[in-house]
Amino acid sequence: MKREELLGIRYKKSENFSEWFSEVVEKCGLADIRYPVQGFIVHRPWSFFVIRKIIQAFEEELEKRGHEVALFPLVIPEENLVKEEEHTGFKPQVFFITEAGERKLSRRLALRPTSETAIYPMFSLWIQSYTDLPLKIYQSVTVYRYEHVTRPFIRGREFIFIEAHDAFREHEDALKQIREDMEISREVITNKLAIPFIYFKRPHWDKFKGAEDTYAADTIMPDGRSLQIASTHDLGQRFSKAFDIKFVDRNGEWKYVWQTCYGPGVWRIFAALVSIHGDDKGLIYPFEFSPIQVVIIPIFYSEDEKEKVLRKCSNIARKLKEFRVKIDDSEKTPGEKFNHWEMLGVPFRLEIGINEVDGNFVTVFRRDNFSKIKVEDDKLVESILALSKEMLENLRRRAEEVFRSMISEAHSKEELLKLMNEKRGFIRVNFCNEEECARKLKEETNGLEVKGTLADKVEEPSGKCVWCGKKAKAVVYLAKSY
Amino acid sequence: MKREELLGIRYKKSENFSEWFSEVVEKCGLADIRYPVQGFIVHRPWSFFVIRKIIQAFEEELEKRGHEVALFPLVIPEENLVKEEEHTGFKPQVFFITEAGERKLSRRLALRPTSETAIYPMFSLWIQSYTDLPLKIYQSVTVYRYEHVTRPFIRGREFIFIEAHDAFREHEDALKQIREDMEISREVITNKLAIPFIYFKRPHWDKFKGAEDTYAADTIMPDGRSLQIASTHDLGQRFSKAFDIKFVDRNGEWKYVWQTCYGPGVWRIFAALVSIHGDDKGLIYPFEFSPIQVVIIPIFYSEDEKEKVLRKCSNIARKLKEFRVKIDDSEKTPGEKFNHWEMLGVPFRLEIGINEVDGNFVTVFRRDNFSKIKVEDDKLVESILALSKEMLENLRRRAEEVFRSMISEAHSKEELLKLMNEKRGFIRVNFCNEEECARKLKEETNGLEVKGTLADKVEEPSGKCVWCGKKAKAVVYLAKSY
Repeated sequence: MKREELLGIRYKKSENFSEWFSEVVEKCGLADIRYPVQGFIVHRPWSFFVIRKIIQAFEEELEKRGHEVALFPLVIPEENLVKEEEHTGFKPQVFFITEAGERKLSRRLALRPTSETAIYPMFSLWIQSYTDLPLKIYQSVTVYRYEHVTRPFIRGREFIFIEAHDAFREHEDALKQIREDMEISREVITNKLAIPFIYFKRPHWDKFKGAEDTYAADTIMPDGRSLQIASTHDLGQRFSKAFDIKFVDRNGEWKYVWQTCYGPGVWRIFAALVSIHGDDKGLIYPFEFSPIQVVIIPIFYSEDEKEKVLRKCSNIARKLKEFRVKIDDSEKTPGEKFNHWEMLGVPFRLEIGINEVDGNFVTVFRRDNFSKIKVEDDKLVESILALSKEMLENLRRRAEEVFRSMISEAHSKEELLKLMNEKRGFIRVNFCNEEECARKLKEETNGLEVKGTLADKVEEPSGKCVWCGKKAKAVVYLAKSY
Repeated sequence: MKREELLGIRYKKSENFSEWFSEVVEKCGLADIRYPVQGFIVHRPWSFFVIRKIIQAFEEELEKRGHEVALFPLVIPEENLVKEEEHTGFKPQVFFITEAGERKLSRRLALRPTSETAIYPMFSLWIQSYTDLPLKIYQSVTVYRYEHVTRPFIRGREFIFIEAHDAFREHEDALKQIREDMEISREVITNKLAIPFIYFKRPHWDKFKGAEDTYAADTIMPDGRSLQIASTHDLGQRFSKAFDIKFVDRNGEWKYVWQTCYGPGVWRIFAALVSIHGDDKGLIYPFEFSPIQVVIIPIFYSEDEKEKVLRKCSNIARKLKEFRVKIDDSEKTPGEKFNHWEMLGVPFRLEIGINEVDGNFVTVFRRDNFSKIKVEDDKLVESILALSKEMLENLRRRAEEVFRSMISEAHSKEELLKLMNEKRGFIRVNFCNEEECARKLKEETNGLEVKGTLADKVEEPSGKCVWCGKKAKAVVYLAKSY
């Protein structure tokens, strides 16, 4: 095998997405899966820098809309974890602390699998009057679940997410918040990261444990499987009754609050970013999120050229100081450097040789479409800003094209069975909306799940359920999922 | 008791610092200590916003100096925790996970008390050649220690800190890093937060468990006790030998790396910020770190005035959009609002009444020195920027004055015994540098500890040890500590 093959990505994303993903995770230094506890990964700088940027993008949108940042303890007393009946379903997945040093603790402490049961006992202390509402709080944390099959950034025993927890006077306010949460998702995931998704209202058998209704954003990964990347839950008054969160209304009446929680799945959003924008060469990071935004490669063939070229590289780097810039002056060949930084997804490469020195320009290479243009030194900053916008637009256009091509429609069982083998992604069908039918469908299709109805649009069903033939009650979208 | 007394801070910082601190923590909404697991606190927005800003300030300085951000798992296998002999000393303080759901795990997993033993097994995989060095990495995380006596932001079972872990080819590089770490501390803690401190080299009996040498920044709290707010450790080759972290040098020889770690104690830096700058009215937050930087209070006595005043308030808020601004248009009286936001430490209050409307100015109140000035509407932005710098300078000057007044010198045992009852803070003495003498000194003075010698300056001892009378070998600083 040639050195280059050893170093670069060998699998093709379109042919073997799963191996491609694992190779990118390893070779681009995203995660190290060799940490000596199974299911726990090390987040290396080339992923964590981007993840932190994603977190900050969400935090900004949350705070713009009146949320305040807080941090609640990692540990939850077991009796609180099981206070809300359905939420108790998390228990088999929870890690428990039972000892400190050589001492046994008097009770088990759960590691947060999600923080409703850590936060709501405090809400019950903080909320007394209608003037304490709305209460809108969030935290960006790691959470812990005892998963059996794990995958970096997709499913892990430790993963990163943001959780916003809100309490309101009226159910109507809660429903408004859900629409706001969808808007935040749109703002960050679509507008900033160029990742397409559909927000579904999940069927009642697939709700969050303890929710009245669950709304979730699903994207489609290159292998055609859907990936939930954010979710918003209408908690109704279930938790407020379980945790006694009440307020005195204007007319002196005690009432339970209405609650929502919203969880952008930061880990999975990162997985989607890697998978959807990446190509056979490796990663493609959007400009705003890349740890290095511009890499400068000096090219020279003599000592005399070297000095001139390196001087220009420094000057250009200084000119670009508002961006995150690296001059790669290592001992590798220019070709090796090109390959390395392309694999790592750096949006722009500047090639600077003696021609560039003499002509007062630089050669700008764009990672997304491999185009090369010459830009005058004096126009470089504005040019990179303009190109970075174009690049984001291009990534969005490409991703949306693929996404749209992965949504199809089946009008009969036969058509569905045929489609599911030919096409990947979502299949739109008329459905009876019975849990039992969904169960059979999943079993007999080797995993096709009902992801739900569109969250922001009512689609009227017509005719019969595509699977059981009973009267259709909803238009739903089916997909195999992560 | 009057309503105002109930709402405001009742204890005086100078008379009863401990009660003052607890009251500020509660009434300013910094932490809630009623979380149902002992020693774990809820970080409420009015503290956590500031803590996050402090974290970001350190992250910026760390990254400027070549550190990369990463995230290592929370859990550490017990066998790794005890690999370095002295570091094993952490074990009695460590929480252990032993169960998941109803299942027993095959081995105990420690919650990180600090992350050397999580990170260094990976260093041993990542570092192979001299070209892999230096390796400079950091993470901002919560850590867990089974402490018996806890205090919000000072000592807790869960607390927030940053840990930077670096590996080098030569010991000299490591020592250079230690100086850089001190510089980072100075940059954030002194320059941005106006908190004075001294960096000490700790005596050998008070080193970090597993370090060759420990350097630590101590400030003085208003009760005269010293508080360690950052520390840097020269780990030598202890961990590299325990975890087999080796590299091939230029000439083909295998060598162990030299390591340092640096921990800005973010939690305690926040405690120092609250305690050192605060006054009898409550908090005083520096402008750059305050969740709200400018609060606008409308003042009116008629419906007609109300409309004009509120309109001006909105216009002014828009003018100040580069800052974090709040208009307090709640139903409380202006006086109540004044007290509330003074207690919360908001740097500037703008009072806007009909005079301000008619005269095209606003009345600006400064929290640190209670001064009020009139500023023309058009000069408000630049005026607030200038005042915020003055305010930081004033806070620094005040804090340094108090700090200097808390450093004294004793030349004999008698003088020391007298001083320790009269003066608070550090006492500079000639010392024999024997652990046994330090132990006796601490016992017989009810807690005076040897904090160490100055880290950045050699002070030549003279004469005899202030305590045992043997030949003095060092000039050290004594203090009672948190």
